[in-house]
Amino acid sequence: MSLRTRLTERLGIEHPIISAPMGSIAGGRLAAAVTQAGGLGLIGAGYGDATWLEREFGAAGNRRVGCGFITWSLARSPELLDGVLSRSPAALMLSFGAPAPFAGRIKAAGVPLICQVQTMAHVREALAAGADIIVAQGSEAGGHGALRATFTLVPEVADHLRKASPDTLLVAAGGVGDGRGLAAALMLGADGVLVGSRMMASEEALTPPGFQKAIIAADGDSTVRTKAVDTVRGITWPDGFTGRAITTDFVKEWHGRDAELAEPSVQAREQERFWKAFHAGEADHTGVFFGEVVGLVHAVRPVDEIVRDMAQEAERLLRDGAGKIVH
Amino acid sequence: MSLRTRLTERLGIEHPIISAPMGSIAGGRLAAAVTQAGGLGLIGAGYGDATWLEREFGAAGNRRVGCGFITWSLARSPELLDGVLSRSPAALMLSFGAPAPFAGRIKAAGVPLICQVQTMAHVREALAAGADIIVAQGSEAGGHGALRATFTLVPEVADHLRKASPDTLLVAAGGVGDGRGLAAALMLGADGVLVGSRMMASEEALTPPGFQKAIIAADGDSTVRTKAVDTVRGITWPDGFTGRAITTDFVKEWHGRDAELAEPSVQAREQERFWKAFHAGEADHTGVFFGEVVGLVHAVRPVDEIVRDMAQEAERLLRDGAGKIVH
Repeated sequence: MSLRTRLTERLGIEHPIISAPMGSIAGGRLAAAVTQAGGLGLIGAGYGDATWLEREFGAAGNRRVGCGFITWSLARSPELLDGVLSRSPAALMLSFGAPAPFAGRIKAAGVPLICQVQTMAHVREALAAGADIIVAQGSEAGGHGALRATFTLVPEVADHLRKASPDTLLVAAGGVGDGRGLAAALMLGADGVLVGSRMMASEEALTPPGFQKAIIAADGDSTVRTKAVDTVRGITWPDGFTGRAITTDFVKEWHGRDAELAEPSVQAREQERFWKAFHAGEADHTGVFFGEVVGLVHAVRPVDEIVRDMAQEAERLLRDGAGKIVH
Repeated sequence: MSLRTRLTERLGIEHPIISAPMGSIAGGRLAAAVTQAGGLGLIGAGYGDATWLEREFGAAGNRRVGCGFITWSLARSPELLDGVLSRSPAALMLSFGAPAPFAGRIKAAGVPLICQVQTMAHVREALAAGADIIVAQGSEAGGHGALRATFTLVPEVADHLRKASPDTLLVAAGGVGDGRGLAAALMLGADGVLVGSRMMASEEALTPPGFQKAIIAADGDSTVRTKAVDTVRGITWPDGFTGRAITTDFVKEWHGRDAELAEPSVQAREQERFWKAFHAGEADHTGVFFGEVVGLVHAVRPVDEIVRDMAQEAERLLRDGAGKIVH
């Protein structure tokens, strides 16, 4: 039994579930596991490291996987795109920045172009670039994003696509962690979902065990959209984007104090502490990007169980939902 | 045809739809129209004005309606509660502040207690006060609220209620403007929805025509959570709450500049301009609270059409959703 949508048909997959290309977290093993489970897995190119990408595409083996870039970062190392396209990815996803400079090469390679958007202005930009699939990402998502919420952004994008580009598919991202989120996304007008945080708490993700422990312990009140994790790393994101992270001690101390944190001597000291804790997997003294869905994540699980349960729960809810109608 | 849920059964209504008690907007005519259409209408007590409340309960006529208070404001004029309870309201809703001091009188009167929550911490407080119905309000909502999103808050509250208080009902608020939102809320684990902004753009609401024009013109990118509308009015809200408003010229000018706006001579000048424009219905020079759902609102409509279409669309979506399951 499975759910058939335009997304499953277009991508030739069993479940309308794509895993998010989370930088340094979504390696080949995670992406391959998602594909094997019946969804589509994406490797996260992050800020761009050709060696890491080569290793992780290798780790995916023969599984059909895609790849996702941070668009403004790709603009600084555009050669990375050719390297990935030469591997015939199942899809290429661009997030955070203007997709137009890269869309032509992706589409010329016959690779489906997925554009992630956070506002209606982004939607218009993505359509102009020729997006095949638009991922509408709400603010509840983990890691980088903006301010619109999944619950209102998805139907508004759906309405826009119906008029402006009916063949462009729509995928909901931000807050989807179980079958309830998948079923709700379909009701809001999406053809499927993109799942990030929930996959970060899987056995196949490259997530340090100490981070996963912090994730399991947190409830949904325990995240915040912050610039602190970027500021301490000296990474300048375009205006309008922040990163949702767990309110670790580091985040509690520095959230909202970016000018102070960016002061060179402070930054040097805090950056050293941040990376030391990061590499040791000591969540409390570093930054752990994760979405509000953390309140629904109570165990680190294998990907095949996550995907299977999400699909089965959504099917059950849709069946039961129809049963609520009385004549 | 209609949707039957625990909420329709508990309240004895046809559709699982409650209208939000929006201060100065949700008068007796709106509340009565929602009840007549098969939902449950709530009059908005706002900051508390006994004369206004008496007039609006009168305007509701013999229709069964409820009432909602701003809890921290009610604490300053607690006698208002007795006045409302003496009218045997269909339900009493408390939002924004500790419900415990008022819960006893409400429950002793045999009136269903609805508590609106924005965080998991609020949920625990509401259950301790004996809430019969919890409204989980996401940040995409118009007017006052906090930071959690509907898409993740609702299922997390549902999980908590299932364990801690299975007989307490759950209603989703924030971003619900049509049948897609209703169907999605049911998938996320809610028993129904609370609808504010969409009702503010109805013929029966006390919304100035100039505000409704601004609402129709705005897309979903055109709102922001801000303190400016409270600061200019000299209303001090408890920490953690902001008001989502349309980015009118006033909001664009003052959002994020609260210290400057609160400076006495500036506030006196701006407050005079604000109220002058408010009473003239000149949206651009005042504050218009509205949610992100503004991007789904394209016309001012009568309440009976809004409620009927929301219910019918949700039913159709749930039926079609079940049809996506393939064996």
